[in-house]
Amino acid sequence: MKSIQVGLLGAGTVGSGTFKVLQRNQEEIKRRAGRGIEITMVADLDTARAREVAGEGVKVVADAREVIANPDIDIVIELIGGYGIARQLVLEAIAAGKHVVTANKALLAVHGTEIFAAAHAKGVMVAFEAAVAGGIPIIKALREGLTANSIQWLAGIINGTTNFILSEMRDKGLDFATVLKEAQRLGYAEADPTFDIEGVDAAHKVTLMSAIAFGIPVQFDKAHIEGITKLAAQDIKYAEQLGYRIKLLGVTKRTAQGVELRVHPSLVPSKRLLANVEGAMNAVVVHGDAVGTTLYYGKGAGSEPTASAVIADLVDITRLHTADAAHRVPHLAFHPDAMSDLKVLPMSEVVTSYYLRLRVADQAGVLAKVTGLLATAGISIDAVLQREADEVGGEGSTQTDLIILTHDAREGTVDDVMAELQALPTVLEPIVRIRKEELS
Amino acid sequence: MKSIQVGLLGAGTVGSGTFKVLQRNQEEIKRRAGRGIEITMVADLDTARAREVAGEGVKVVADAREVIANPDIDIVIELIGGYGIARQLVLEAIAAGKHVVTANKALLAVHGTEIFAAAHAKGVMVAFEAAVAGGIPIIKALREGLTANSIQWLAGIINGTTNFILSEMRDKGLDFATVLKEAQRLGYAEADPTFDIEGVDAAHKVTLMSAIAFGIPVQFDKAHIEGITKLAAQDIKYAEQLGYRIKLLGVTKRTAQGVELRVHPSLVPSKRLLANVEGAMNAVVVHGDAVGTTLYYGKGAGSEPTASAVIADLVDITRLHTADAAHRVPHLAFHPDAMSDLKVLPMSEVVTSYYLRLRVADQAGVLAKVTGLLATAGISIDAVLQREADEVGGEGSTQTDLIILTHDAREGTVDDVMAELQALPTVLEPIVRIRKEELS
Repeated sequence: MKSIQVGLLGAGTVGSGTFKVLQRNQEEIKRRAGRGIEITMVADLDTARAREVAGEGVKVVADAREVIANPDIDIVIELIGGYGIARQLVLEAIAAGKHVVTANKALLAVHGTEIFAAAHAKGVMVAFEAAVAGGIPIIKALREGLTANSIQWLAGIINGTTNFILSEMRDKGLDFATVLKEAQRLGYAEADPTFDIEGVDAAHKVTLMSAIAFGIPVQFDKAHIEGITKLAAQDIKYAEQLGYRIKLLGVTKRTAQGVELRVHPSLVPSKRLLANVEGAMNAVVVHGDAVGTTLYYGKGAGSEPTASAVIADLVDITRLHTADAAHRVPHLAFHPDAMSDLKVLPMSEVVTSYYLRLRVADQAGVLAKVTGLLATAGISIDAVLQREADEVGGEGSTQTDLIILTHDAREGTVDDVMAELQALPTVLEPIVRIRKEELS
Repeated sequence: MKSIQVGLLGAGTVGSGTFKVLQRNQEEIKRRAGRGIEITMVADLDTARAREVAGEGVKVVADAREVIANPDIDIVIELIGGYGIARQLVLEAIAAGKHVVTANKALLAVHGTEIFAAAHAKGVMVAFEAAVAGGIPIIKALREGLTANSIQWLAGIINGTTNFILSEMRDKGLDFATVLKEAQRLGYAEADPTFDIEGVDAAHKVTLMSAIAFGIPVQFDKAHIEGITKLAAQDIKYAEQLGYRIKLLGVTKRTAQGVELRVHPSLVPSKRLLANVEGAMNAVVVHGDAVGTTLYYGKGAGSEPTASAVIADLVDITRLHTADAAHRVPHLAFHPDAMSDLKVLPMSEVVTSYYLRLRVADQAGVLAKVTGLLATAGISIDAVLQREADEVGGEGSTQTDLIILTHDAREGTVDDVMAELQALPTVLEPIVRIRKEELS
């Protein structure tokens, strides 16, 4: 049987990995797919780079539209990235009847609804395993492996850059800025790291997972996003003393009121496997009502790990493209006419537990005042850690740190009581609040 | 569209969970599958039990063949277990043109070749996600999620009973027999626990994963199997001191010479996530050449976790049964005409590293003699731990324990040198050998 013909848009790091892995494992992949899978055409503005990546026998062009217009091409891989031209090209490829494989989480988190609708109408597949957690087959697990379950929540370390930075901050007791520079030097962080360190990349990914888990449309604009730039080394240390590690988590949870969709630093109990995912590795914990808690771990980025997911999608399409379109795996796990309209909750409606650090005057009655306000607000306390003033501010210090772990509370309630606490004359600096996820 | 009609053979723990989960989540499952999925008929010799599980509106029969003969049934779930009647019924269901879902690892590890060939010839699917690691979608990950990779090895904690026992032995410093009794009392071990504690159950599962990972036929008879019954509490303690935990692993590895296929207790570095999988939980680590190391964790047994896998297979079949048979996901990941004839290596050809414990006379020259014999055999030493005689045998003891960790060596070579060591007059008891997997 004739090989499946693939056109590649974008010959960067992942494109190059895709070429390498397809070539190295071509015989084994063919034995699995039942047909050869071959990249026969590649488009990149830098045709010299594309030529180098593609090797002999592959047509190289500067214009992506030449690939899309080629009637021999069955599948188009989009590895350009971003929301702009990538959106246009993906829609054109769909209109031309091509199946699409993409690693573009930003595109799908923002324009997924439009793109999946177009693909559904045209009867083609848009596969995106590579868009979330690199080589970990988490989209497949959510969309196919856990279909029996009413999924309750998931929480993931889905950005390697920030996990590397947090691991280094903890290991070496260094502050954020110092470790960021080191991460840039080592290639773990980009020259402009904004999307990673501000949590935007993780928010794209958790938006996609949330849609698939709960059968809701992609709604990136509803996600609550906080990065790690304001994290202080001392909070990592205090968390450790209390039996927790701080991780940047993407969390999405179904409640009777709606769906929580949020990215922020979180305390995670040190004994959880997720807390022990170190360096640039990724992991996602998924809790389903039948299966209980499952975890998926691996490399979330890099040339060949991401190529592993791109090629798995190529094999899936090769295996499934003869199934009638109504019976294929739906793009967002649920059939488009059976999506849920469960709304995404504003952050003030989220219920979770909290780590609060207050820099307070070291004098009698402060703890009573603080805990009194919390009690009045109906927020119950799980643990308190009060430091020796000398240890915190040096000998003779008149200030100290008061750390409070709360039980579950509504975020809006916590906002209100934080404002009251902040107004106390004995609270000397802005209160640090970090959310806490028990993941049990 | 008419619901997919399912017939269930065996209304035990997993069958009951399958009913419960299908009922509780029926609306959500239908939104995913595009069609309703309904168990309309159940066969169990204990029809009263079956009636209780099935509730109203489901036909209950004692004879499984009535289910198979029913032309309205699209899929048969086999949850009888064992090699006997289950084999016959699965083959009859296939012959009747039914798709089959089974959780029966023993059946497939031993008779898989016959069963998959029959299914292939008839153009039906035999799905078995529930046969390995309960609710963890590991079959799907291996067969579909990692198709880009040349899989190099995998290692798994795939028997919850033994992992529970080992976790308790370590936590409480108790010996095997004591913990086994406790596990039986708590329901973690069966009245006859032989299949679990002797490693047979794990060997069934790793046989299936090995076939899927490497594209070889199922060859349970070639698996090397050792259980945990001979493990001593002191070896768990020594391992801990050396930075390792002891787990019962199913390991399969591809080498240029052939495939390693083995189940035995193994030292695993304490810092690995796999070493931190405690209690009755399961986890599988898979190493692919492109993706690197990935890990899959969750509940490996129990009514609803296993039902989660059974129902995922039902949804898969519902989604894929319209694909032409040549393009579906192959039963063993590789197309039947493209299997590999890579042979399974005898244990003597396996290369791994070792923990050796020698009870020796506490006298000069013993260490030199022992290490000399190892050096002569070409086995290099990674670490040595020699205990104080008093600590091991009580005050005034003239015996001590000598623990040696080796680097990689051929098992046959280790067998030979162990025979030489055992013959030394200063080696006082049978040498304890436990294999060690670095998983790096």
